[in-house]
Amino acid sequence: MIRVALIGSTGYTALEVARLLLAHEEAELTVATSRADEGKPLSEIHPSLAGRCDIALQPFDPAAIAEQADVAMCCLPHGASAESVRDLATAGVRVIDFSADFRLSSVPLYEQWYGVTHPWPERVGNVVYGMPEFFGDEIAKADVVANPGCYPTSAIMPLAPLVRAGMIQTDDIIIDSKSGVSGAGRSPKLGTLYCETNESISAYAIASHRHGPEMQDLIHRIAGKPVDVLFTPHLTPMDRGILSTMYARPVLQDNDTVQSVTSRLMDELRKTYRDQPFIHVVDHLPATKHVVMTNHVQMTVRVSGPNDQPGRVIIVCAIDNLSKGASGAAIQNMNVMFGIDQMMGL
Amino acid sequence: MIRVALIGSTGYTALEVARLLLAHEEAELTVATSRADEGKPLSEIHPSLAGRCDIALQPFDPAAIAEQADVAMCCLPHGASAESVRDLATAGVRVIDFSADFRLSSVPLYEQWYGVTHPWPERVGNVVYGMPEFFGDEIAKADVVANPGCYPTSAIMPLAPLVRAGMIQTDDIIIDSKSGVSGAGRSPKLGTLYCETNESISAYAIASHRHGPEMQDLIHRIAGKPVDVLFTPHLTPMDRGILSTMYARPVLQDNDTVQSVTSRLMDELRKTYRDQPFIHVVDHLPATKHVVMTNHVQMTVRVSGPNDQPGRVIIVCAIDNLSKGASGAAIQNMNVMFGIDQMMGL
Amino acid sequence: MIRVALIGSTGYTALEVARLLLAHEEAELTVATSRADEGKPLSEIHPSLAGRCDIALQPFDPAAIAEQADVAMCCLPHGASAESVRDLATAGVRVIDFSADFRLSSVPLYEQWYGVTHPWPERVGNVVYGMPEFFGDEIAKADVVANPGCYPTSAIMPLAPLVRAGMIQTDDIIIDSKSGVSGAGRSPKLGTLYCETNESISAYAIASHRHGPEMQDLIHRIAGKPVDVLFTPHLTPMDRGILSTMYARPVLQDNDTVQSVTSRLMDELRKTYRDQPFIHVVDHLPATKHVVMTNHVQMTVRVSGPNDQPGRVIIVCAIDNLSKGASGAAIQNMNVMFGIDQMMGL
Amino acid sequence: MIRVALIGSTGYTALEVARLLLAHEEAELTVATSRADEGKPLSEIHPSLAGRCDIALQPFDPAAIAEQADVAMCCLPHGASAESVRDLATAGVRVIDFSADFRLSSVPLYEQWYGVTHPWPERVGNVVYGMPEFFGDEIAKADVVANPGCYPTSAIMPLAPLVRAGMIQTDDIIIDSKSGVSGAGRSPKLGTLYCETNESISAYAIASHRHGPEMQDLIHRIAGKPVDVLFTPHLTPMDRGILSTMYARPVLQDNDTVQSVTSRLMDELRKTYRDQPFIHVVDHLPATKHVVMTNHVQMTVRVSGPNDQPGRVIIVCAIDNLSKGASGAAIQNMNVMFGIDQMMGL
Repeated sequence: MIRVALIGSTGYTALEVARLLLAHEEAELTVATSRADEGKPLSEIHPSLAGRCDIALQPFDPAAIAEQADVAMCCLPHGASAESVRDLATAGVRVIDFSADFRLSSVPLYEQWYGVTHPWPERVGNVVYGMPEFFGDEIAKADVVANPGCYPTSAIMPLAPLVRAGMIQTDDIIIDSKSGVSGAGRSPKLGTLYCETNESISAYAIASHRHGPEMQDLIHRIAGKPVDVLFTPHLTPMDRGILSTMYARPVLQDNDTVQSVTSRLMDELRKTYRDQPFIHVVDHLPATKHVVMTNHVQMTVRVSGPNDQPGRVIIVCAIDNLSKGASGAAIQNMNVMFGIDQMMGL
Repeated sequence: MIRVALIGSTGYTALEVARLLLAHEEAELTVATSRADEGKPLSEIHPSLAGRCDIALQPFDPAAIAEQADVAMCCLPHGASAESVRDLATAGVRVIDFSADFRLSSVPLYEQWYGVTHPWPERVGNVVYGMPEFFGDEIAKADVVANPGCYPTSAIMPLAPLVRAGMIQTDDIIIDSKSGVSGAGRSPKLGTLYCETNESISAYAIASHRHGPEMQDLIHRIAGKPVDVLFTPHLTPMDRGILSTMYARPVLQDNDTVQSVTSRLMDELRKTYRDQPFIHVVDHLPATKHVVMTNHVQMTVRVSGPNDQPGRVIIVCAIDNLSKGASGAAIQNMNVMFGIDQMMGL
Repeated sequence: MIRVALIGSTGYTALEVARLLLAHEEAELTVATSRADEGKPLSEIHPSLAGRCDIALQPFDPAAIAEQADVAMCCLPHGASAESVRDLATAGVRVIDFSADFRLSSVPLYEQWYGVTHPWPERVGNVVYGMPEFFGDEIAKADVVANPGCYPTSAIMPLAPLVRAGMIQTDDIIIDSKSGVSGAGRSPKLGTLYCETNESISAYAIASHRHGPEMQDLIHRIAGKPVDVLFTPHLTPMDRGILSTMYARPVLQDNDTVQSVTSRLMDELRKTYRDQPFIHVVDHLPATKHVVMTNHVQMTVRVSGPNDQPGRVIIVCAIDNLSKGASGAAIQNMNVMFGIDQMMGL
Repeated sequence: MIRVALIGSTGYTALEVARLLLAHEEAELTVATSRADEGKPLSEIHPSLAGRCDIALQPFDPAAIAEQADVAMCCLPHGASAESVRDLATAGVRVIDFSADFRLSSVPLYEQWYGVTHPWPERVGNVVYGMPEFFGDEIAKADVVANPGCYPTSAIMPLAPLVRAGMIQTDDIIIDSKSGVSGAGRSPKLGTLYCETNESISAYAIASHRHGPEMQDLIHRIAGKPVDVLFTPHLTPMDRGILSTMYARPVLQDNDTVQSVTSRLMDELRKTYRDQPFIHVVDHLPATKHVVMTNHVQMTVRVSGPNDQPGRVIIVCAIDNLSKGASGAAIQNMNVMFGIDQMMGL
């Protein structure tokens, strides 16, 4: 039995970890920490766990956690997270970090976008990105895994293989993403009140969201080529799910048609993900409803016409921001780290 | 032109007042106050007003308001509201008070349920309840009007006439109400975050909500008889609207059938509201969607069977909690106070 | 491996069965039938299954099914369902019937409420009601199980034990239920279009819904006493979930207080469900969000006051209409029928 | 009093016309037609009108309508609409056509995209496009007005002035639009059932939606230059509203920065719409919630960086698809046609 510690237990990703572990046969939640709610049962913070997971919240004590857990899921805000990750790793606990603290390749890039001094700079650039579809071998051996961002997951998974294969141009990629509200967290704020977001869609952080550089950095790492993406996130009136609609220019071959380009790109994606149980290259247009409450990903490709003059590539990718975009990916990473079936519990 | 001051401008009822006044031909918003956001344009607080109502927020100054406005809509929390109402009335401004401070008949009842010492006790029991369908003459002359609570509006309008007519028993009335989330206000709280309330319905304040005594008090005042109601509110995943489903026992006559009881009660309601333009006694089962964004009320009556053994009366009433349940009623009251068509702007 | 056939595959309960079986270690979907979509992959009807469950839809052939499956989940409309159940049972397939065809105790009661001649009357009254919390032993041996209705599940589970214990009066029970829209099925109808039901709540089938007699019949069967319930369902703007708010009168004892009555009823429920892993008697007020996407049930009791004069019992119970109210209960029943852990896959 | 006929009364745009006319002081609904529901009161089809607009539905009879109405709002599907428009215009009734039948400049373009033979080809290209912000003078004199499409309104209003001013490149415009479900109409279809669209977002008709050519055609007509747009609509879980996020390349000047480009474009839009009461060029990022249930439009401009290397122009525009995108625009057109204040009733 893999013993799991939850670090920072009050948010939606923490609840999702707890929920998924309830159905996992080879892992169990043994520790849950919270600064503000120490002593309370986890189910008091998350009433859906009543009678199902009532363990008491503990303070954060790396040594104590090292005795009770094999792996920690760290659901803290950036900055604070890196400190806890360092302390846990030092105490010998393997860590899956939900924050962005170890996702980017370099400290300057991190500090430019996150505006804080990194507490453990020597590990930056030296932590595997927790996307088993590309980094499975490294994850299996890792002491620390940087769990991917939600938006980046929806963009990297279809774009990286196509960039790597030289099938789309690297300097003209637009990513228009629509996310459910859970992505904004569980802290009370005016902007995420029901009556502010319900029955409404809006763009935010245009050309300035921190997930933009994460997408660029990871596509570069996976595909071996720098890319330039313009990223616009939108707040969508639903609990969960991300739909990313992406616009790129195809690298054309002689006599290409809309059909030939579409087939070539779909084939490349199908080939890439042939053995990946969570990634589905589909003919229909994915909706977030098709993937929420699962760790699965659906993606497809369209090309604008007219048929003998292929225009732009349009790629649509749907994920669940809390599952494959956060806690589901973390469980998948844990499975890989401990050498069990990556689908277990998912 | 009636000049209107908005006291406390940041909440949903305040926005609804501003919105309704934009379409009102004989009233205009001349003052809007806010402690926290003084100096900002109202449209910065409520972006839907951008370019439509950009007046600057002022501090609360009764003398200054008296020069700029004929009537004040007071959208403050209970307790604080009574103080402002007193100061405005003293300064010669007519006031429509959205709080519960002057709705109940007695100071002890108020202090029992609201847990505060009333700041202006001598006016309690001496302020008209702003329901023009029953108190139109008094409203026309009033210096202060107690604007009705949202849940009470949905319950009093169908129940009071039937109690008054002796058609339902007074000691066994159950009111099961379902409200949209805007009723919970615009202050950031965990319980009204999108992801907490969306896709979920729950009961709250069972047998302990402050609107229970308001219903009893007002039905008593209108019908001339004390009643006993059991009131359960529910938080429903929608912005606006209240549906109240009410259960009572009919006062039976010889040879009554389901049909005869139903007709008698429907007829009584139709007779009561024949000349009331906002109240509709309908044959279909009302949905909140039929009335939201209007000041209209839909109600109907059913009786359980078998046909020759009429059982219980079930009454369904739908209103918009922000309109007829708050700001629409306030505009209607204002219209009556200033002697213009009560439907103007609604 | 338990081999499962899905009879009638296009609706929401069928999808939920397929979804749950994907996570079940000892059962698998081997057959899915559909009259209208024969030959198509199941995932074409339900795109969320793409790449996860692509078996082709078959016509309904009891003999063929008997070779491919150990148990059939019959998701057909009433009337049609009884015929298929008869044919499958005759062919030797154990059946879990989602329709109401075998839930009621007598043919006349069935024919009065469902308006059709029962196709297999000899089995009516002779089929176990699929609620393992009360009928586990019979379910274990059953060839046919009548899977409970969604609303009845939410009402029977808290009410039956209290009626059986003589703690609430049997002649004055009101059940005000609020259901998500999935309960209305997947056939295109005006009434369940997004723009008709979104942002709206409404009552329907007041005092005339078929689940009323089912509640009465089953509480009678479980508690050994006839009861009289008044049932009002409401259509609520959410996908899944039922919240039932129930009003009853307590059977009082000397010196009872609000507190003593509340404790006595909560204790009785806790005792009843002590060993039932899905049923949680909780202190907080349940919301449907706490139970959707699970087979769990949350219930609680409140009593109206004043404290020395206990008034009415208010019971709140939350379930997921598609899970514990349909497909989850079916999986639980299957587990019991085949002697495996009743929580498996749930 | 302008007498208005509603042709085709059962859909959402028809309801919106009826709703808006109830608040219009100088126009009234005198005729409403319906093939399927002849004789029924309009309020039976639309229960929100109960007691407010109960006129009986008539068959379509142009001569009779000519006696009862000054203007007809034609809410029929394309193809059918052109026939009715022709018959009404011939009978002397001025017509506002909600369909696409007279929006495009040429018959071949229409027949290519709509796949039907145009019933009144001689008027195609000879009917004013009902956007008073650009074609007010022609609308004032028109016998027939082609009411704009919903998506085109959200795209043309910000793009046409910028193209006309030569500020954005014409060959690289991407329009990613998100619409509420009411845009899909009121006919029962699987795809618009509540449980199919709720809690989900999806793209549809990628690079093949009929509103793409309408956008190109109209921007060309207004700006005097052909443009190439790539249009992707999305179905968003909300009743009403369209948010269009548009991506274009700026035409740069020497020493341009992100800031200088942003200012130049915002200024051009502000200048264009200075005297247009419904169009608001705002600093904040518009949400559909800011404009639904109004005829107002909010738009803004952002430019991606770094500051000394301005990248792409991102434009966000929010409208209500049923109001400014359909019925509100129709009322505005009617006001202009009859020489009254264009804001009346809006």
